[in-house]
Amino acid sequence: MAKAPVLTPQATDFPRWYQDVVAKAELAENGPVRGTMVIRPWGYAIWERMQAELDLRIKAAGAQNAYFPLFIPEEYLRREAEHVEGFSPELAVVTHGGGKELEEPVVVRPTSETIINHYFAKWVQSYRDLPLLINQWANVVRWELRPRLFLRTTEFLWQEGHTAHATEDDARAYALKILREVYEEVMVDVLAIPVRIGRKTERERFAGATTSWTCEGMMRDGKALQMGTSHELGQNFAKVFGTAYLDDQGEQVNVWQTSWGVSTRLVGALIMTHGDDAGLRLPPRLAPIQVVVLLVRGEDGAGERAAAIAAELSAAGHRVELDDRVDTSFGRRAVEWELKGVPVRVEVGPRDLADGTVTLVRRDTGAKEAVAVDGIARGVADALTAVQDDLREEARALRDAHTVDVATIEEAREAAQTGFARVPWSVLGVDGEQELAKAGVSVRCLQREDGGLAFSSAEPGLSALVARAY
Amino acid sequence: MAKAPVLTPQATDFPRWYQDVVAKAELAENGPVRGTMVIRPWGYAIWERMQAELDLRIKAAGAQNAYFPLFIPEEYLRREAEHVEGFSPELAVVTHGGGKELEEPVVVRPTSETIINHYFAKWVQSYRDLPLLINQWANVVRWELRPRLFLRTTEFLWQEGHTAHATEDDARAYALKILREVYEEVMVDVLAIPVRIGRKTERERFAGATTSWTCEGMMRDGKALQMGTSHELGQNFAKVFGTAYLDDQGEQVNVWQTSWGVSTRLVGALIMTHGDDAGLRLPPRLAPIQVVVLLVRGEDGAGERAAAIAAELSAAGHRVELDDRVDTSFGRRAVEWELKGVPVRVEVGPRDLADGTVTLVRRDTGAKEAVAVDGIARGVADALTAVQDDLREEARALRDAHTVDVATIEEAREAAQTGFARVPWSVLGVDGEQELAKAGVSVRCLQREDGGLAFSSAEPGLSALVARAY
Repeated sequence: MAKAPVLTPQATDFPRWYQDVVAKAELAENGPVRGTMVIRPWGYAIWERMQAELDLRIKAAGAQNAYFPLFIPEEYLRREAEHVEGFSPELAVVTHGGGKELEEPVVVRPTSETIINHYFAKWVQSYRDLPLLINQWANVVRWELRPRLFLRTTEFLWQEGHTAHATEDDARAYALKILREVYEEVMVDVLAIPVRIGRKTERERFAGATTSWTCEGMMRDGKALQMGTSHELGQNFAKVFGTAYLDDQGEQVNVWQTSWGVSTRLVGALIMTHGDDAGLRLPPRLAPIQVVVLLVRGEDGAGERAAAIAAELSAAGHRVELDDRVDTSFGRRAVEWELKGVPVRVEVGPRDLADGTVTLVRRDTGAKEAVAVDGIARGVADALTAVQDDLREEARALRDAHTVDVATIEEAREAAQTGFARVPWSVLGVDGEQELAKAGVSVRCLQREDGGLAFSSAEPGLSALVARAY
Repeated sequence: MAKAPVLTPQATDFPRWYQDVVAKAELAENGPVRGTMVIRPWGYAIWERMQAELDLRIKAAGAQNAYFPLFIPEEYLRREAEHVEGFSPELAVVTHGGGKELEEPVVVRPTSETIINHYFAKWVQSYRDLPLLINQWANVVRWELRPRLFLRTTEFLWQEGHTAHATEDDARAYALKILREVYEEVMVDVLAIPVRIGRKTERERFAGATTSWTCEGMMRDGKALQMGTSHELGQNFAKVFGTAYLDDQGEQVNVWQTSWGVSTRLVGALIMTHGDDAGLRLPPRLAPIQVVVLLVRGEDGAGERAAAIAAELSAAGHRVELDDRVDTSFGRRAVEWELKGVPVRVEVGPRDLADGTVTLVRRDTGAKEAVAVDGIARGVADALTAVQDDLREEARALRDAHTVDVATIEEAREAAQTGFARVPWSVLGVDGEQELAKAGVSVRCLQREDGGLAFSSAEPGLSALVARAY
């Protein structure tokens, strides 16, 4: 572990710790235009790994990638009343192009429901064209007054899925398929973040949706982070854009739609779920580099041995980096890899090699172990599995320790200062929700008592999960 | 081959043929804002394959991916005089954000040299930080008055590499490494497009560069298409942004830089290099689907056999699609796959199966062959190799047949009506170049007589490759 405190300790000032990690691990910096972000190579490599895991599952769910324009005519946004009301305050507007003032200003997409529906209306003719399942990887812009790197930026990167279905049931099933088989699976199994999934209240619903489903993670300061949402749009956009199909009775019927997205915000979630006072701690299944082979000193053939070990670990299918920069001090390099969160470090030095061993260090616990060079591949594979499982269980334990069941609004407000509170929705209701909002506490989602999905906010016996949130 | 003419024949009207292919093969459509483009799933799948092949080689060349903001302060662009002069007429400008007029308008990036140098200036301190090798995948905007899908659009997708080096030699070597090991290799070996590489004249050079290297393809109408460029920027941007390092003598020295990019324009190059009157013809190494197994009719267990063949071909490592939509006519489906350019079609019907055979159809030649079901994997592999090689050689033969050596400006203008002309640069010169420009003919690149790279436009014995261009 790092001996000198390179980062502000979490316990001292969690937001400051977050800023420190983002800077020192070289993840991102502020852009010159307020709220924009430069994603540096290590931050971007993490995002690329997230993209790969998501894209695989999005394609497995049957959606195809496509690309729609950045610029949307303002008029498109105005068609869906709730949608424009929700997004108007955040729009960036282009008024000049090619040296001239534009006749009609265009907005930089804050999300693409409107422009995509313009095309869906052309592409969908008959029930044979359904379901139409489209995803795009893109940048979007929402003007941000209180920006925070990864968590809330004026421009961010994301994927946004948009689908059209013949029936409401189909649309709902698909929205939930994405929620569970893409988002929940990547978050829990790959990012090692034990999210809670549930239904947004009407207050928190996406502007233009009939139902919003969400994945909520708990950060190490007890606050919630909305990590991904999957929306049922009903026929709201279909009606205003005329997206309809000829059913088998020869009738024109508006399609039922979904939209769903996750963004570079996930990088923020990862940092705040697993990071500690020495920096990031990356779950191995996600980590761009899973093992760093760190050459202590190059004497007595240690350099060649380190390279051979790195090659053996690569051949075993791990993502490996060899750090043989012996002109930089060992301590400084060790601190750097800890900051970057590489899950397993293999230290190779002449002294250990003389005994036929290397030192294997787990980033999550700091535990060091002498491992025989002969058994290194097995030792590393076991350590990676252990780190993956232990990070997830540590996060789950922290979350559960900071989740309490309460019976009153007052207790909910109190409990939300340090974590999640579960309060009966019948106790809270729309008025209670508004009261909590004044204290900076929001309903993250509604769930059935057993944690199952609630198909209506009017269902009896629902719990509201409330928290302060990013 | 398609019996009914779904497309305008190339010989009748090449530009119209291009539009038809883009529409009928469902590659792209015009966006609602002039010059923007919707890339449909098949067009985007082709782009994703290009990205994968490029990204692999960019990483192998040592560059790391990162992401810089879409919005650039106007003032950044103004710092490099040639650069701002080149890009000013094409800028899109955001004047309003978050419901307010901005104090300083921001431009939507037309390219990122300026904003990236702002950060390079912070990140580069010592010679140890060099070379700094960065790439980004992004959208850029250049207001386009005569848009054409893929070839010239207001918004397009691309990768842009930006590097900083300690010496001019290093920078040049890297610009050429990218030109040859990334661009030329992908274009020739994967896209099967035999490009010519060479040096741009000063007139055609990138705004802000000291040298621009280019890859030029010949389209089937004899016109040239610039498919990718790699620039040496000298110290032009480094000086105005203060990007400097402390050398081993303790002196502050400005870095030497490169930038390089290819875009969705490559999809246009692919269409116009290989397409024929029945649609696209995709080279197998690029094709998102390499083999379509087309079920003729489902009787007598043919459906199961077709599925088994598709599974066998997938297991052999090919990208395979099973088309068992027997409720759509066989002819219509065959036309659709021809339009989309899938290189090999395996037709599976009850009649052939009774003989233990299937029909293998090559998209490039239309040649049909009965192949034993037992040997199908071998037959398909051989056909894919043959299509890849034959498409490249066909393109090379067409290019060579339309390239002539001429001795005068007048002959060059004449020859450029149907292809490339090679004329001594000593005959042409800057004045001749301007004269040709009036006739819509430009110098695509300068080369040595043997086709080798020219390290200065003042070298004796250079040839100018001239053509009409997209």
